[in-house]
Order: sequence, then C-alpha cells, then structure tokens
Amino acid sequence: MLQIESELLLIIRSVREHMSETQKYCVGIDLGGTFIKFVALGRDFRPGPTLQLPTPVQEGPDGVAKRMVAGLEQLMQSQRLSREDVLGVGIGAPGPLNLADGIVVAMPNIPGMENVPLRDLVSEGAGIPAVLENDANAAAYGEFLCGAGLGARHMVLVTLGTGIGGGIIIDGKIYHGANTFAGEIGHIIVDPEGEECGCGQKGCLERYCSATYIAKRAERMIRQEGRTGKLAELLRDNGAITARDVQLAAEDGDKFASEVWDSGMYFLALGCVNICRLLDPDRIVFAGGMAKAGDGLLGPVRKHFKQLHWSLTDILTKIEIAGLGNDAGVIGAAGVAWNAFD
Amino acid sequence: MLQIESELLLIIRSVREHMSETQKYCVGIDLGGTFIKFVALGRDFRPGPTLQLPTPVQEGPDGVAKRMVAGLEQLMQSQRLSREDVLGVGIGAPGPLNLADGIVVAMPNIPGMENVPLRDLVSEGAGIPAVLENDANAAAYGEFLCGAGLGARHMVLVTLGTGIGGGIIIDGKIYHGANTFAGEIGHIIVDPEGEECGCGQKGCLERYCSATYIAKRAERMIRQEGRTGKLAELLRDNGAITARDVQLAAEDGDKFASEVWDSGMYFLALGCVNICRLLDPDRIVFAGGMAKAGDGLLGPVRKHFKQLHWSLTDILTKIEIAGLGNDAGVIGAAGVAWNAFD
Repeated sequence: MLQIESELLLIIRSVREHMSETQKYCVGIDLGGTFIKFVALGRDFRPGPTLQLPTPVQEGPDGVAKRMVAGLEQLMQSQRLSREDVLGVGIGAPGPLNLADGIVVAMPNIPGMENVPLRDLVSEGAGIPAVLENDANAAAYGEFLCGAGLGARHMVLVTLGTGIGGGIIIDGKIYHGANTFAGEIGHIIVDPEGEECGCGQKGCLERYCSATYIAKRAERMIRQEGRTGKLAELLRDNGAITARDVQLAAEDGDKFASEVWDSGMYFLALGCVNICRLLDPDRIVFAGGMAKAGDGLLGPVRKHFKQLHWSLTDILTKIEIAGLGNDAGVIGAAGVAWNAFD
Repeated sequence: MLQIESELLLIIRSVREHMSETQKYCVGIDLGGTFIKFVALGRDFRPGPTLQLPTPVQEGPDGVAKRMVAGLEQLMQSQRLSREDVLGVGIGAPGPLNLADGIVVAMPNIPGMENVPLRDLVSEGAGIPAVLENDANAAAYGEFLCGAGLGARHMVLVTLGTGIGGGIIIDGKIYHGANTFAGEIGHIIVDPEGEECGCGQKGCLERYCSATYIAKRAERMIRQEGRTGKLAELLRDNGAITARDVQLAAEDGDKFASEVWDSGMYFLALGCVNICRLLDPDRIVFAGGMAKAGDGLLGPVRKHFKQLHWSLTDILTKIEIAGLGNDAGVIGAAGVAWNAFD
C-alpha cells in the first residue's frame, strides 16, 4: 500500500512538473537600427507570432531600452503570459558587445549607444532576467534550433549582406571563441596579395563575394573596361547597380553579369571549403539579403564547392539557404535565453 | 550529537573517495610506425616515465596488438599498478580511423593493418576498457592538458612535418567535427590558383610551409633558377636538402636560405590568421619536427602574423611552441582515456 502511494505521488509530481514546464516561455528581442522585434518561444521551440516596433533612434539608449521593455510587456499581454511564465529574455544586438557584462560597446546608428548596460536596463525594467548575444550568433542559433540547421550538431551560418558575417554552432551551442571574435568568416584571407579591407587585412573573403563588392566589381568593370550588357544599361539609367541586379541579369543569361556573379559564387565556395577543412560542420547555412537568390546562389556555390573540395572523402557537409528569413535573430535570441535560464 | 555524527560520516566518506581517487590512473599508448609508447597518467595530470617498445611491423595487426598489451602490462608492473588501479587505456594512432567503433581503417606502414578493431583487441587482451583517438588530436590534447596549452580554453595544435596536420581543442575537449575531419589545417586553401595538392585541391597551406615543401622549394630554385649559397653547396654535396638545413643556413645569414625560410613562415602566419578569424583560440601551438627550430620559427611567424592580422582588435591569440616534444601524443592518449572513463 505504502509503495503504491509513493508511486502515485511520484506520478502526480511528474505531471505537475510537466504542466508547469510546458507553460514556460523565453522571449527573444532583436534590436536593429530600424525595428525592434519580439517573439515568445515555448519549450517545444515553436516560435509564436512576432511583434515589431520601430526603434526610437532619436530617444537614445534609455528610450530604446524603455521601448524594449514596453514591447516585451505588449507581447506578453497579447499572448496572456504573466511574469512567472517567462523564464528569461534574450537580447540580440549588433556588435561590438561585452557579452559577459551585457553591455553594448557601440551601435553607430543609435546616437549615444556607447557602453550601455542594455541587458540590465531591460532586465530591471521588466523584472525578468536577461542575457545579451551578438545578433549574427543569435541568428545562427535560431536557424540551428528551428530552421535550416534542424538536426545538425555542428553548423556554420554565413550572413551575406553589406559585409559577410557568421555564427558558429558547435555541439548545439554558440561558439564565441576565446575573445568573442570567432566566426568572422568574411575576414578569412583568400588572397594575401589582394585588395585592402577596412579591417586592416588584405584580400578578405568579403572583398570578393559580399553584396557590396559584387555590385562594386560590376560597376568598376563597366566603367574601367567598358563592359556592356544589361548591367551597363542599368548603371546608366539608375547610376548604381546592386548584387540583386547582377544575379537577376545573370539568370536572364546576360554574359557579363554571369561572369561577375559566378566569380562571387566561386569565392563563396572557397570560403566554404576552408570552413570544412577547419571545422567539418554538418551544415553551412547562408542567410542575409543575398541568400534571397535561393537556387541562384546555391546552384553555382555547390558547383564550385564540388570542384574546389578535396577528393580524400565524399562531400559530407550540406550547404543550404536559411529557413527563417529575418526572424532567425529574434527566435535565436529567445533560444539563447532558454540556454541561459532553463 | 546526531548532526555531528552525520557530518563526521560525510567527512570520512569524502576522505575515502579522495584516497581511492588519487590511486587511479589512465594509461596512454601511442602507436607509431617505428615505436609504441606507453605512459601512466594520474588524476593530477603529471605523467609518469614513458616506456618505448619497437613496433613489430612484420608481425601484422595481431602482433602489434599483443605488443601493445604486453607493453601495457610491463608499464603497470614497473609502476606497481594493478588492473583495478587503471580506469582505462587511450590509444593514439595515425588515421584514417573509425573512432566510434575503435577501428584502424588503414595504416600503410604496418602490412595488413586494414579495418582492424584495435581498440577491442587491446581492451580484451588487457581486460581494461580502451578508447581510440587520432594521434594528432591526442597530441593536441596532451599539449592542452600538460604542455604549451596549459590554462587555455580553446587551443589549436599545428603539427609541422612531412605534411601539416592539427588538432582543435574547444572548451577543453577534442573537437572532431561532424565526420571526424576537423582540424585539417594543412589543407586550408591559401592560393586557389596554386600548385596541385595530393588531396585533390589546389594551393593547400602545406604546399607552402611543410618541411617537405620548404626543402623542395629551395631545391627547385637552385636547380631551375641557379640560386647559390650554402644550400646549393649542401645540395651538391648531399644530393638533398632538408627544411632544417634551410632554417640553419637562414640563421647563419645566408640570403637565399633566409628568403626561402621566410616565405614558409609567411604562409604559416597566414594560416594562423585564418584560424583566428574562424576560431579565435586562446593559443596556437606548433609541434612536429619543424617546431624544433624554436625561436627560429616563432620569431618570423609572429612578425608576419602581426603584419597580416587585422587592426580591429589587438592580437589576443598567443602563438607558442609545443612543450612536450614527442611525448604529447602518448600523454594526450592517456588524457583521452581520463575523459572517456572517469
């Protein structure tokens, strides 16, 4: 009789724990220069609807922190979450950050956002513990938890935009490196005799395949080498070209555009081979504006990757496009909070 | 009174556990083509004296496994260790290996060593659990635990010999990658238009700075470009040059030798910069034959590293020479066993 009672007690306790577990959430906040995004993430890692508010840039750091707290409360209200339901808040912000102390060291597009203890401002304002993470790392973690990295153990996210950034997931955790500078994929040197990069190195990967440089290269070749075709017409009409223009013209069969786009994809593939040689990840995932090209990016990158990759083993690392679009960062920020506060 | 009794009991138990803990050991075995090495490592990670036996190459896989068991027993006897004192055995062997199943897939210098379940042969022969690890990874772990990596959290070992290999330690553990191919530092591509490598890629790092290629480059420049100096004399007298010859002649002020050596050190530094951009380790440690050059290697590598490194942050990764010499592998193998069986 006593044994049955104690077993029943165990079952009741386990059910209670399970019920309270499934009711817990973490909230992600993604701080950008234009918008702040919010999302709640339950233990099932299925993100709820996102909330998006404008970043009150002109109100400075305090105004931004207040908006973050207000948005958090708005999200909780709309999803009927009490303070007790929320284990913690994860904040994704652009670097440079002091992660250990939760401080935004600098954020050029918000005046006054220098050495601001953003983590504590939000945490104290909301009465909920908070954690700060680099936005690229948060996006990598979001893709890992709920996007193109599902099922992987080691994953590298490569963000393709103005520059090239990245985030590394090792054994299911964000890898920061010894000084939080890991994953600077855009600054792998691919040509030590190459063009000078803003970082002080020469021939960095992002000088060959970021959106900025693909567009720049096309413009330069038109202006300096008199190259013709669709892109030359666009440049004449609009005064500028984007990487998207190059990609679309290439898909339309424009020869010069194909040449420029393909050269960018070649260097991207070279970066992937070097990532494989050092890290041997399950998956490399492309995100950011340029990843919208989808197969227009994957096709040529995979082709060059296959040609550049060694023959000692089969190709085992999969190259994919991110699955969460612009929500990867905010979802990942919530995941970071799960990691910190569960 | 009851409380004091129970506290005393706790103290007695803790002392007992500690006593039995300090008596436990793991044994490392490093299998090479010429010698097999053995060492016992206590919980204090201070390695005991090593035992070295010739590898009975002509006796095939079974003979090699028997020698490993015999050496293990000899080591245990000489250090008065019973079977109960040894928690486990770590075996370091050259790749390719199937780590999960403890199988040596191939080892060209031992006839018949193909798909041999070496881990189980040793474990069953000795009656002690065993674990298999790649020898470069074991060496990295050895340096991390007891050598130049002491105090680091993330460390990369670069072995400089015939080729360039490596091992990555992340958060104090060997990082294998998704398919056990991580840390192939010698096959980072540094010049995609460069020389073909045996691996099927072009312009791999080891084609520019391994001992083999530094010597080859000097020979080629003497033969094809008619370069003169000490190395040309050595080549005429001996019919061959080694990387060590190049380094010593460079230290003696020979101009041509300095040029060749410095070029190798430049590429080594380039590899280090790319390691930092991706992994941001606390430390990069050089091991292998070429590392015997000591400051003759560190000086020029650090100089080029400083010049190639970005200016966004100070240089925070330290570059050092391995501290355990040829014992890193066997000590690390014992460490791997601690990790597996403690």
